[in-house]
Amino acid sequence: MMVTLNADMGESFGIHTFGNDDKLVDLVDTVNVACGFHAGDPTGMHETVAKALAGGVTVGAHPGLPDLVGFGRREMKLFQDEAADIVRYQVGALVAFLKAEGGTLDHIKAHGSLYGMSSRDPELAEAIAKVAAEYEVPIFGIANTEHEKAAQKLGVPFVAEFYVDLGYRADGGLIVARRPHATPVDEATERARKALTEGIATAVTGEEFPIRVDSVCVHSDTPNAIEIAQAVRNVLSTL
Amino acid sequence: MMVTLNADMGESFGIHTFGNDDKLVDLVDTVNVACGFHAGDPTGMHETVAKALAGGVTVGAHPGLPDLVGFGRREMKLFQDEAADIVRYQVGALVAFLKAEGGTLDHIKAHGSLYGMSSRDPELAEAIAKVAAEYEVPIFGIANTEHEKAAQKLGVPFVAEFYVDLGYRADGGLIVARRPHATPVDEATERARKALTEGIATAVTGEEFPIRVDSVCVHSDTPNAIEIAQAVRNVLSTL
Amino acid sequence: MMVTLNADMGESFGIHTFGNDDKLVDLVDTVNVACGFHAGDPTGMHETVAKALAGGVTVGAHPGLPDLVGFGRREMKLFQDEAADIVRYQVGALVAFLKAEGGTLDHIKAHGSLYGMSSRDPELAEAIAKVAAEYEVPIFGIANTEHEKAAQKLGVPFVAEFYVDLGYRADGGLIVARRPHATPVDEATERARKALTEGIATAVTGEEFPIRVDSVCVHSDTPNAIEIAQAVRNVLSTL
Amino acid sequence: MMVTLNADMGESFGIHTFGNDDKLVDLVDTVNVACGFHAGDPTGMHETVAKALAGGVTVGAHPGLPDLVGFGRREMKLFQDEAADIVRYQVGALVAFLKAEGGTLDHIKAHGSLYGMSSRDPELAEAIAKVAAEYEVPIFGIANTEHEKAAQKLGVPFVAEFYVDLGYRADGGLIVARRPHATPVDEATERARKALTEGIATAVTGEEFPIRVDSVCVHSDTPNAIEIAQAVRNVLSTL
Repeated sequence: MMVTLNADMGESFGIHTFGNDDKLVDLVDTVNVACGFHAGDPTGMHETVAKALAGGVTVGAHPGLPDLVGFGRREMKLFQDEAADIVRYQVGALVAFLKAEGGTLDHIKAHGSLYGMSSRDPELAEAIAKVAAEYEVPIFGIANTEHEKAAQKLGVPFVAEFYVDLGYRADGGLIVARRPHATPVDEATERARKALTEGIATAVTGEEFPIRVDSVCVHSDTPNAIEIAQAVRNVLSTL
Repeated sequence: MMVTLNADMGESFGIHTFGNDDKLVDLVDTVNVACGFHAGDPTGMHETVAKALAGGVTVGAHPGLPDLVGFGRREMKLFQDEAADIVRYQVGALVAFLKAEGGTLDHIKAHGSLYGMSSRDPELAEAIAKVAAEYEVPIFGIANTEHEKAAQKLGVPFVAEFYVDLGYRADGGLIVARRPHATPVDEATERARKALTEGIATAVTGEEFPIRVDSVCVHSDTPNAIEIAQAVRNVLSTL
Repeated sequence: MMVTLNADMGESFGIHTFGNDDKLVDLVDTVNVACGFHAGDPTGMHETVAKALAGGVTVGAHPGLPDLVGFGRREMKLFQDEAADIVRYQVGALVAFLKAEGGTLDHIKAHGSLYGMSSRDPELAEAIAKVAAEYEVPIFGIANTEHEKAAQKLGVPFVAEFYVDLGYRADGGLIVARRPHATPVDEATERARKALTEGIATAVTGEEFPIRVDSVCVHSDTPNAIEIAQAVRNVLSTL
Repeated sequence: MMVTLNADMGESFGIHTFGNDDKLVDLVDTVNVACGFHAGDPTGMHETVAKALAGGVTVGAHPGLPDLVGFGRREMKLFQDEAADIVRYQVGALVAFLKAEGGTLDHIKAHGSLYGMSSRDPELAEAIAKVAAEYEVPIFGIANTEHEKAAQKLGVPFVAEFYVDLGYRADGGLIVARRPHATPVDEATERARKALTEGIATAVTGEEFPIRVDSVCVHSDTPNAIEIAQAVRNVLSTL
């Protein structure tokens, strides 16, 4: 199986945009489209879906916590059913735009703190996997965490992600920052190369640990997102 | 064809509820479920859908303007595409809960000012009808207005509604009030009887005009919604 | 110093109301007015302030987490400065309505999870106390917790509250429930009597612990809020 | 009296920013700070106020319609009292940050459609002027429209604005676009020169009309806002 490149997309809000979407769509294989809770609005979601499908890119849902100001990066305590319903609402909304444009849902990938919390909390992970089961699509997540366990438990395909623009803890956990710093391109390139060719990632504290990668993710709100995506694409082309 | 009774439902928000839903579901044939923009939240939408399906009632989407504080009753100027996307987003979100509960979408009925504005504005009416065409469901609306014309133009089935708890203008237009007064039950009963047996409605200014009725609507936020729904049900049972 | 009775008020949202405010204002000494983040909207805040001042009741700000759907009862991870700014924004908004009606701010009392979290987290407690210092008003909180410590540290007067409609842990901590159950009136009366005359509270697990009470609080979203407020008022009148 | 240069500022939202604020503050005399309804959030408002005061610039409130997605540029039907309360809420919130930073409110200037609607609707204009009277500050607006009439009626000082980056109708009315195009710098310069030295503005349809200018406004969301502000500053320096 080919390792893919995925990017968050459609994380604009109203007239506010990061401006990276037009170029990202040419570099990636699949996109995770914001669904209105941490970013995104109906018009922007429709445009993003149309742009992605026109660019031959598959479209996944990128549901987040109900927190526009915090961009879904402030942890929030949720009941399991409540989390599932928050995901259902957003996934359904995105599917309406796919329906209007003749596309179908490719996958579900939680955003920000919902992604981070669910990698550690089986209840939240199962809430997300349950919705994926309803839509019969895979979930994207971190290998060997509750993401993967929930996928297995609910019989949902799992796509293991690697992040070149975020830090890892020594236990393999991802550090979801409120305002991520730009990652130097050569650093992102080296991380991608090492993970993809040696299966090794490095924690921010220096420890190396094994990592399995089905897809590499680039964030659209990183200032140099295009450069990083291009660098990862170059590494992928050498595999 | 039988004339049906429909009610708005799921117009609670967070811990705020009108408290009429449990009883309304026993009295009506179909419900219009709020989708989060003028009222409703993910948990409440799921519960409402489950309640409706358990009660053997069909479920339509009730999309509104993005205005929780104004309960979707403050007119707002929208582009046509923007209106369509606002409707798509909400309908899709509702469909996710129907999917989770094994139900299917019955119809689309706009809420509040989106309903009122679209009865007069062909662009808005077509925006709503377009989404109904995508989902292959009827729209609910006011006969002989832009609602019906848009349905015809886009080949979408149309269900003509009559309101026993709102006033009409002499031209047949509906008066969407910000905070509707409770309608006396005997008045609502007489309106229903006259519309259903004689095909006649009366404007707030006294003029009578002909009306075609496929479905009678009761609002869930009216304090005496249950009594009114029961009264209309009684009239319907005598037809 | 007299022990006062306070109640949350203005926790309606748009057309949604709990319906207890009109009667509560006759029973209490001071009210905590919701400021739009967990409940409340501009029109409702103005009406509530006018109603309170007309009823001869003092008005405090009741800022909450930015979470309307969760009524500010879902814990949310915030930076200290961010929490202070969330409180400032809400307090300032309320003060505008007091200014319009010729009143002044009496106190600040955090709502829901912001209240609960700040009783345990010195950073959050100081964020709230800092705003109280800017407005030169007391904060309401739980005695012997971070609430009181922050008030002392920042030189802000402190009003120790007792809750007759919430449970306590054995360590004196308050249990902020998402959807509080109605408390039987005789139980609330006994809790009030014991706290006010003996200085003793009882944990949900049975342990008794000493409590200092400057003000007793009643929640406006409790179904029997009026009965409870009346019962506490009766106890207060016997002191 | 000197003609001033003012700019909207703090119209970021969460992690979304236009990026022009840091440079605008060096070019203008006074700023209109977004208050959270059309843009802006507590943290951003605090930072903007601190930045403006540190830059020796006065700070006005820039209240908008409650519509983040539409950036306050979608017209919305409001009752007069409701509009006044929406303005009060936002102005009060901003004043809290001024209080924290030791500044005072300089003026009130409505944003987007609230600005446009109130220039034509005396009820809305008086709603805004009433709040300005409560705070004893001037309102910014368009000369010879309801803005100025309301200010006179309520005894509030009035500052007549000229826009170099928006179009005018032949009757002097301003065209508030949903997504303004970038204005070429030489065009903006010529408009500023003509208005400031000859007292003449030109409608988009070609007609010239007299205009009185107390302050020139530059929008922060225009891509070339900095260049335009610099150009206007150059014109002002030659007066």
